[in-house]
Amino acid sequence: MSDTGGPDHPVVVAPLQSRFVALPGWARLEEPAGDSPGATYPAGFVAGGVVVGLKDSGRPDMGVLAVAPEWREAASSAAVFTTNAFAAAPIVVNRNETDLGHLLAVVMSSGNANACTGEPGLQVARATQKACAETLGLPSANVAVGSTGIIGVQLDPAFMAAGARKAAGAVKPGGGPDFDHAIMTTDRFPKMCALEVALPEGNVRLGVCAKGAGMISPAMATMLCVVTTDAVVTAEEMQVLLAKAIDHSFNRVTVDGEMSTNDTVLFLASGASLVRPGGEGLGLLGAALDAMLLRIALMMVADGEGATKIMRLAVSGAEDDAQARKVARAIANSPLVKTCMHGGDPNWGRVISSAGAAMAGRFLPKARLHLCDVLVVEGGAAATVSEADRDTMAAGMQEPEIDIALDLGLGAGAAELFFADMGHEYITINAEYHT
Amino acid sequence: MSDTGGPDHPVVVAPLQSRFVALPGWARLEEPAGDSPGATYPAGFVAGGVVVGLKDSGRPDMGVLAVAPEWREAASSAAVFTTNAFAAAPIVVNRNETDLGHLLAVVMSSGNANACTGEPGLQVARATQKACAETLGLPSANVAVGSTGIIGVQLDPAFMAAGARKAAGAVKPGGGPDFDHAIMTTDRFPKMCALEVALPEGNVRLGVCAKGAGMISPAMATMLCVVTTDAVVTAEEMQVLLAKAIDHSFNRVTVDGEMSTNDTVLFLASGASLVRPGGEGLGLLGAALDAMLLRIALMMVADGEGATKIMRLAVSGAEDDAQARKVARAIANSPLVKTCMHGGDPNWGRVISSAGAAMAGRFLPKARLHLCDVLVVEGGAAATVSEADRDTMAAGMQEPEIDIALDLGLGAGAAELFFADMGHEYITINAEYHT
Repeated sequence: MSDTGGPDHPVVVAPLQSRFVALPGWARLEEPAGDSPGATYPAGFVAGGVVVGLKDSGRPDMGVLAVAPEWREAASSAAVFTTNAFAAAPIVVNRNETDLGHLLAVVMSSGNANACTGEPGLQVARATQKACAETLGLPSANVAVGSTGIIGVQLDPAFMAAGARKAAGAVKPGGGPDFDHAIMTTDRFPKMCALEVALPEGNVRLGVCAKGAGMISPAMATMLCVVTTDAVVTAEEMQVLLAKAIDHSFNRVTVDGEMSTNDTVLFLASGASLVRPGGEGLGLLGAALDAMLLRIALMMVADGEGATKIMRLAVSGAEDDAQARKVARAIANSPLVKTCMHGGDPNWGRVISSAGAAMAGRFLPKARLHLCDVLVVEGGAAATVSEADRDTMAAGMQEPEIDIALDLGLGAGAAELFFADMGHEYITINAEYHT
Repeated sequence: MSDTGGPDHPVVVAPLQSRFVALPGWARLEEPAGDSPGATYPAGFVAGGVVVGLKDSGRPDMGVLAVAPEWREAASSAAVFTTNAFAAAPIVVNRNETDLGHLLAVVMSSGNANACTGEPGLQVARATQKACAETLGLPSANVAVGSTGIIGVQLDPAFMAAGARKAAGAVKPGGGPDFDHAIMTTDRFPKMCALEVALPEGNVRLGVCAKGAGMISPAMATMLCVVTTDAVVTAEEMQVLLAKAIDHSFNRVTVDGEMSTNDTVLFLASGASLVRPGGEGLGLLGAALDAMLLRIALMMVADGEGATKIMRLAVSGAEDDAQARKVARAIANSPLVKTCMHGGDPNWGRVISSAGAAMAGRFLPKARLHLCDVLVVEGGAAATVSEADRDTMAAGMQEPEIDIALDLGLGAGAAELFFADMGHEYITINAEYHT
């Protein structure tokens, strides 16, 4: 919360630990003291995590995050859910039975996805929601539910309700990390971020508690993410900011190329800063949110099973953005490309072959490809690469962050995507895990 | 070539080694003595393979297969090539500069894909084609070219021409296996098949020499396949039979989910049997071709790096076939599903999650899923599975061939796909290979 001395409206952010997270030049990075407090960094939030018994490991497996009682009147919210056709029971309950613009709490659990569980699953989600709401003294419609874990295994509603009461009773200021640990599954590290933004109207805070990684049990792929702020913002403003930030972050990464049955992003505002951003302030808040969620998304990529590096793939020169995205997804999801990157081999033919398959039937005589900023394909054919450039590329391939840029030479469509490599640990974890 | 004693028109086929290759009930399986002679099993063909020096291993790397001189007048052909936007030089030369209905020979090489090589690459392909044609005493336009190997490395036209002369000089009756070995790359075993079909008009033979597998170097993914017959058929009939058979076989398998820059399937007919099939005969010939190419396609799946089993995935109940294919591809290309199958874990949630992602935004309340013939999802939710059925499923998951059947419950669209699992060897070969 120091004065950053930036030109106008400096953003103070915890280190983003990646050259891929672009910050405005005037932003000064600052880590909050100690571990990130995550979603309880903004004023007006309480959170907690407890052991309910959903995980065999005995680790915390249910958490509640809530707007502190004194800020309930001022609070607003927004939400985005998976569009998977087998959306889990909590997603259905959230969509159909809650007030998504006025959420005051969320109860989330790990170990069981409550997906493919039919009507009994909906009863479990409702029982969990109700128990949390009653303990906090809230209507059920103001409480969202979330879960991650194995698909197709029924839960006992009474068991889950007892867990929700326990978790709701454990909330406290600064409990963000407890909440985050309670929603982790195969995550190797917690995914939290906290930052302060100096707006023209005053300082406001943003925080995130999230989980997400490659996966063992089917829906442990799930991305759960709770974003908080103490800014005074309306539900409508929040929905726009959230949709934009998701498009800028989660929609630009791919770990396994799959969207789970349980993916959930919630955005809660307490209003506790009493700072009401105007047009410019909302823009700055949005830029900070973009950077923060991109950081979280890259943490998820970096936590992919067996992942050792992150690739930034820029596809340009497509006929439109949709075509660029299609080609980028094909390259990023190619196991051949992912294993090649893992091995640190500048074998760009795999990128070309994947792109060519995605553009089947077309002719790309102007295509250009850069790998680690070295031009390797020009005019659709291999470029002459100097010895020095070969050395640059060989060294670049050993870095933890690798740049790939493909220009299709057709038009102005572009897309950018981040993806992880694929190594032995991916197979070990995913093939040797047994339900 | 024994009389099989079937009811009407028995097909004599080398063992298809898979319960997934459906043969007419009256077909009798019989292996030709010794190894399969592949594409030189039908009368009127010669072939050979030689060491040219394209492969560091010193193994055979260029092969020629040709219609024997006395049958050149009667011969016909058909061809199907990759639609990859970065199609290799030989593909371009074949498409634009050869008489695809009257091919009399093919020269194929392994070690270098001649892809992403621009105008110099086209000169190399033409020089190879010309040298082969001159040695055999043919016009260049009657000779197809094919290659597989690394992408983006230029070849010397004189070196390739000398190789083509050597290979064309080595052709002999029964040389199919020599040709096949010369086109193999990372293939762990040759992919050949030979069979005889008893048509109403008389017996005719079919043979195949092919290569294809998961891949190390980018385009070693390439599928090269030369099919031969001694039936008297027109180029037009062959193109229909070939397109149908490819749709039934190669288009129903996925190893890495990618189509390479060099994929080629050629179909040559010598007419040497003097048997001219009529309508019924063409139908039987087509059925035999379907079974033979499906066998070859399943060999390719089984030879995928790290593959230990083959899954047959049937998606039904889609709104149309295209939707069913989309869902099937999503499941079959999911690394989560592939690793789960490798581990032998009946973790069907991964199948459901992949399918749901492919059907984003939809609601599938009638979905049903069978794994190893056990109903595990009904009405969009987990079905009750008995202990006995659990045992059946656990045992089934250890088999080399696994059945997965997903009914989306929407309509009459259907698709069937075969895919391999993904294990450590895949990562080892693909990540640790260096260009």
